[in-house]
Amino acid sequence: MSSLDALDLARDLIRRPSVTPADAGAMDVLQRALEDLGFACRRMRFGEIENLYARRGTARPNLCFAGHTDVVPAGDAAAWSSGPFDAAVSDEVLIGRGAVDMKGAIAAFTAAVAQVLAEGEPTGSLSFLITGDEEGVALDGTKKVVEALAVEGEVIDHCIVGEPTSAARLGDMIKIGRRGSVNSWITVEGKQGHVAYPQRAANPIPVLVEILAKLQARVLDDGYEGFQPSNFEITTIDVANTATNVIPREAKARVNVRFNPAHKGAELQAWFEETAQAVAEGFEGKVEVKTLISGEAFLTRRGDFTDVVAEAIRETTGEEPDLSTTGGTSDARFIRSLCPVVEFGLVGTTMHAVDEQVPVAEIRGLQAAYARIIARYFERFGEASR
Amino acid sequence: MSSLDALDLARDLIRRPSVTPADAGAMDVLQRALEDLGFACRRMRFGEIENLYARRGTARPNLCFAGHTDVVPAGDAAAWSSGPFDAAVSDEVLIGRGAVDMKGAIAAFTAAVAQVLAEGEPTGSLSFLITGDEEGVALDGTKKVVEALAVEGEVIDHCIVGEPTSAARLGDMIKIGRRGSVNSWITVEGKQGHVAYPQRAANPIPVLVEILAKLQARVLDDGYEGFQPSNFEITTIDVANTATNVIPREAKARVNVRFNPAHKGAELQAWFEETAQAVAEGFEGKVEVKTLISGEAFLTRRGDFTDVVAEAIRETTGEEPDLSTTGGTSDARFIRSLCPVVEFGLVGTTMHAVDEQVPVAEIRGLQAAYARIIARYFERFGEASR
Repeated sequence: MSSLDALDLARDLIRRPSVTPADAGAMDVLQRALEDLGFACRRMRFGEIENLYARRGTARPNLCFAGHTDVVPAGDAAAWSSGPFDAAVSDEVLIGRGAVDMKGAIAAFTAAVAQVLAEGEPTGSLSFLITGDEEGVALDGTKKVVEALAVEGEVIDHCIVGEPTSAARLGDMIKIGRRGSVNSWITVEGKQGHVAYPQRAANPIPVLVEILAKLQARVLDDGYEGFQPSNFEITTIDVANTATNVIPREAKARVNVRFNPAHKGAELQAWFEETAQAVAEGFEGKVEVKTLISGEAFLTRRGDFTDVVAEAIRETTGEEPDLSTTGGTSDARFIRSLCPVVEFGLVGTTMHAVDEQVPVAEIRGLQAAYARIIARYFERFGEASR
Repeated sequence: MSSLDALDLARDLIRRPSVTPADAGAMDVLQRALEDLGFACRRMRFGEIENLYARRGTARPNLCFAGHTDVVPAGDAAAWSSGPFDAAVSDEVLIGRGAVDMKGAIAAFTAAVAQVLAEGEPTGSLSFLITGDEEGVALDGTKKVVEALAVEGEVIDHCIVGEPTSAARLGDMIKIGRRGSVNSWITVEGKQGHVAYPQRAANPIPVLVEILAKLQARVLDDGYEGFQPSNFEITTIDVANTATNVIPREAKARVNVRFNPAHKGAELQAWFEETAQAVAEGFEGKVEVKTLISGEAFLTRRGDFTDVVAEAIRETTGEEPDLSTTGGTSDARFIRSLCPVVEFGLVGTTMHAVDEQVPVAEIRGLQAAYARIIARYFERFGEASR
C-alpha cells in the first residue's frame, strides 16, 4: 500500500471532470484507493450528489480528513495551456481544474495515510468525509452527511479540511475559524406614477435608500478574538426604470454581512427586518425582507489540536503558520458542529482560475506535512485517550 | 373663409399619422388652411422636423397661437374602438390620436381665426407657431424656432399654447406657468471584489446611498406664489449585480427635480455635484454627475393678459378657470423667453391613451372661447397700442 503515489492519484482525480453536481467517476477513484488502504467505505447519496464517508479502525480518537471532489467549471477551455481535465505535468507543475481546490490535497492526504500505515498502526481511527457538492449550493453535501452521522452517533474527534489555505508558501497559513455569512433581499413596493404628480404615486426608492443608509451607518463590532470586524456590504440595488418621468413601483436591494462570533445570523436577520419596518412606518406601500443564513461564525480555539497541526507544519515546511479566520465560507461551517476543525491545504492563488496549477513538489510537501500531522496527532491524543 | 369647419380640419389633421418625428403631411394640411385665411407661411425645418411660423398682418400687437402637430404612438391599435388615424365620429364624439393633444385645438383656433376675420380686421397681427417635435426630444422644434425668431427680431407680444389644460370640463383650468425640470445621472465607480475581502475592493453602493440620502433629506422650499413646493424624486438606482458574493464595480442612480421659480436648474445641478463630491471625499473610486436641465420654471403673472383669457372663457363656457402651474413641462417653457404665455385647451383625460377622444361640442366650445379671446385681446391690447 505504500506504493500509492500522491501525484498519480491527483492526476486520476483531475481526469474525472467532476464539475458540480457531476461526479464523473471521481468518487470511485478515491474509494478504490481508500479500500486498498483498508478503509470501510460508505457512499451516501443525497439528491444527485455523491458523498463518501470512509473509516479505518473503530477505536477513538477518530481523526477525519474532509474535502470535496467537485470542481468549478473550466471557464474558457481554449485559454488553458493544456486541457483543463488532462492533468498535464509540465516542468514539474501539475495543471488542471481541481489541482489546488482540492483534488491535490485529497491525493496528498491519502498518500500520507499510506505512508503512516507503512510505519505502523495508528492508535485510533482515520476517516474521510468527502462530498461532491461544495462548489455548488452545498445543500446535499457535507451538511447532510454531518446530519446523518450525528443521528447515527458516529464520533469524529478532530477534523482537518483540505481547502487551499496557504497564502504564498505551503504552510504559511491555516484556518482555525471562519466568519459567518448572511444575505438578505430587501424589496420595497410602492405605487407607480408620473414624476410631475408625486402626490398620486408612492416612490419606493427613498424608503429603500433610508433603510440602507441606516444599516450601513452601524458599526457592527471592533473585531473578536482572532477575527476581523464584522462587515456589512450592499451588493446590489435594482430598479430598472428607464423612463425619466416615471416614479417606479418597486425597488430591490441585496445586502451581505460577513460576521465574527460576536453575532448570530438570526440576530442580523432581525436587525434587517426591524430597520426596514421602522423606516417603512407610515409608508403606503410595503416592505419585504427575505434572509438566508449561509453559515454561523465559528472558532476552533488555540490548544492541543491547533498546536499539533502547527508544529507538524513547522517541522516539515519550516513555515510558522498564521492561524487565520479570514476568507469566505467552507464546509468547515458544517463540520464544526461535530468536532474541532482546522483547515490546511495548498497555496490557493490559482484556484477557480484558468491554468489552475500546483508544483509537484508542493503536493509532496503537503503529503509530508499531513503525514507528520497524523503521526503527531496520535502521539498526543492517542496516548491521552487510552 | 368663414366656411372653415373646426371638426373637418381636426379630422384632416388626425388622418395624417404624424407620430414624432414623422410629419405625414399634417403640416401641409394646416398650412393650406392658414394660407386660405391670408397667413404668410414660413416652413422652418430643423433636422428631420417640420416647423411652421405663420403670420397674418404686420402691426403690433402680435397674438400667437402655439402648438404641435406631432402625436404620441397609437399603442395597441387593435385595442382602439376605431382606427387611431381614422378620425371616426361616433355619437358626436371624435376618436383618434391627437384629437385632444392637440390637433383638435389647432383646428379650433384656426376656425376661431376664420370666425373673427369674418367679423372684421383685427387691430394687430395673428400668428401660429407650430412644431412637429413636442412629444419627442423637442430639440428641433419650438426651441429652435424661438431662437431663430429672436435672432430675426420677430416680435410676439402674447402667446396662447393649445395644450389640453382643461381638467374635467372645458375651461375649468388654464396654465399660467410651469415648474422647471432637471434630471441628473449620478454614477459611482469603485473597485470590484469578493465580499469576503472588502479591504481589497471599493464598494460604490454605500457612497451612492449616502449621496441619495443627503439629497432626499433636503426640503427644497415650501412653495412659491401659485406653485406647489419643488419636489425631488429618485427615479432609478441600478447596479445589476447577480452574484451574492461579489462587491460590484459601479452603481448608478437618476434623480429628477420639478421646481418652482424659487430655484434655477444650474443651482440644482451645482447642488447635485457638490453633494456627490462631498460624500465621495476620500473614496478611492470616482463619482460622475451628468445633468440635463429640461426647462426652467416660469410664471406669467396675473394681469391684463390672463384677465382677457379668463374673462373670455367665463363668457363662453360659464367656467371660472383655475390659473394653475401644475403638471409636466410643455413648449411654453421655450416661448416664455419671447413673451407672456398662457396655456388653454381641451379636457386632457384621454391624451396619450387608447381611444383618445373629444366630443364634437367641446371642439366647437373651444373655438368659441378662442374666438372670444382673440376679440377681447385686440379690444384690450389693440386699443392700448395705438
